[in-house]
Amino acid sequence: MRRIKCVIAYDGTHFAGYQIQQKKRTVQGELERALSTIHKGEFVRVYASGRTDATVHACGQVIHFDTPLAIPDERWPKALNALLPDDIIAKEASEVSPSFHARFSVKNKEYRYRVWTGEKNVFLRHYVYHYPHQLDVTNMNEALRYLIGTHDFTSFCSAKTEIDDKVRTIYEAEVIQEGEELIFRLVGNGFLYNMVRIIVGTVLEVGRGKRHAEEMKAILEQKNRDAAGKTAPGHGLYLWHVSYDN
Amino acid sequence: MRRIKCVIAYDGTHFAGYQIQQKKRTVQGELERALSTIHKGEFVRVYASGRTDATVHACGQVIHFDTPLAIPDERWPKALNALLPDDIIAKEASEVSPSFHARFSVKNKEYRYRVWTGEKNVFLRHYVYHYPHQLDVTNMNEALRYLIGTHDFTSFCSAKTEIDDKVRTIYEAEVIQEGEELIFRLVGNGFLYNMVRIIVGTVLEVGRGKRHAEEMKAILEQKNRDAAGKTAPGHGLYLWHVSYDN
Repeated sequence: MRRIKCVIAYDGTHFAGYQIQQKKRTVQGELERALSTIHKGEFVRVYASGRTDATVHACGQVIHFDTPLAIPDERWPKALNALLPDDIIAKEASEVSPSFHARFSVKNKEYRYRVWTGEKNVFLRHYVYHYPHQLDVTNMNEALRYLIGTHDFTSFCSAKTEIDDKVRTIYEAEVIQEGEELIFRLVGNGFLYNMVRIIVGTVLEVGRGKRHAEEMKAILEQKNRDAAGKTAPGHGLYLWHVSYDN
Repeated sequence: MRRIKCVIAYDGTHFAGYQIQQKKRTVQGELERALSTIHKGEFVRVYASGRTDATVHACGQVIHFDTPLAIPDERWPKALNALLPDDIIAKEASEVSPSFHARFSVKNKEYRYRVWTGEKNVFLRHYVYHYPHQLDVTNMNEALRYLIGTHDFTSFCSAKTEIDDKVRTIYEAEVIQEGEELIFRLVGNGFLYNMVRIIVGTVLEVGRGKRHAEEMKAILEQKNRDAAGKTAPGHGLYLWHVSYDN
């Protein structure tokens, strides 16, 4: 068997999320269906770097699967794209060592979150969070800096999470203004359930002057989801890039 | 009765076109449904600057309707947007003279057409024509210059058209490169059925070197749809702006 690593992008608008669910349209479901066709009906399990929720997008999701087929690396995206729906695309593929695992080998992940502060725009409705408020970008960047480093992110994690260890390391956290759009960039060794969306929701409250940037420190210390702000909606979020050691 | 002029935008992806059709989702149908609700069930006819086809978008479509209601100009967009689906938006409204007509008073119209020459991109699939070829922009602009002025555009009009007078004046015609995107801009006093899409399809063939720019002159002279190139798909086309006197 060969192990194939593949970078995929998807428009999350019409998916119930990445992970397979009964009777729902999911990214994993579409990938496994396409691979099953390539393998003449044989089921092929797909492993991803992590799940994404309904309406969340991906530019650089990474998956792996095992195959007995001797298809050259550059042929895999073509074979998959011929069978995938038009809201998923396989961007590149390469054979990797059998020790590679799309989820367990992750070194770090970059998420981006797009906020649109301008007038309502029909063409952006699925791709940015429409937040038509005046925002102080300097204060927002100050708030984000409190998150850089290794912290217990319980306060920035959905209370529904079953994972016990909520310590994660954030390497980069910033928000960039491009005209009427704000782009959040977060790079870390891992992100808890809803973590990016809760961070964005909280930092937007700082941007509007409803919270002080320094509050971020106290929020982290409280280890209580209720201390943080609202969860920003899924459709502004992009799994941007996943890095692995070599 | 007051006559209200209103600028609207819509994402054409999920519409069977602008014009009302039995059992199909249309922009006009949604507008008249919203206006009927505002008028407590009374039917209100909406007139537009012109139709747009299925999947064609609009940033600056103009409509008018007559109403007995004394709603201030700036309240109309709010009232409509509260009732319209999220792929149509009323941008601005103003009371106009009863002699104003959204279609018959048009002075000129601007259409834009977006072509994406880069790699397939799931986020752009409904909003640009994916045409991954090397294109000579200088030759394309030369081809477009042959169209500027007053011409019989029979060759650039769907053979299905019932209109007899196919003479139109084009004031501006150019293509601008922005990275891997090409944006066609056409301004004229009127456009025939499929005219922009046939112009774009033909000029793209010039861009690829399949036709010479000078052929545009001969194509116009032939007054025959078969002389021109393919009709580019609807989802790259935007009704950008409609101008009226004053």
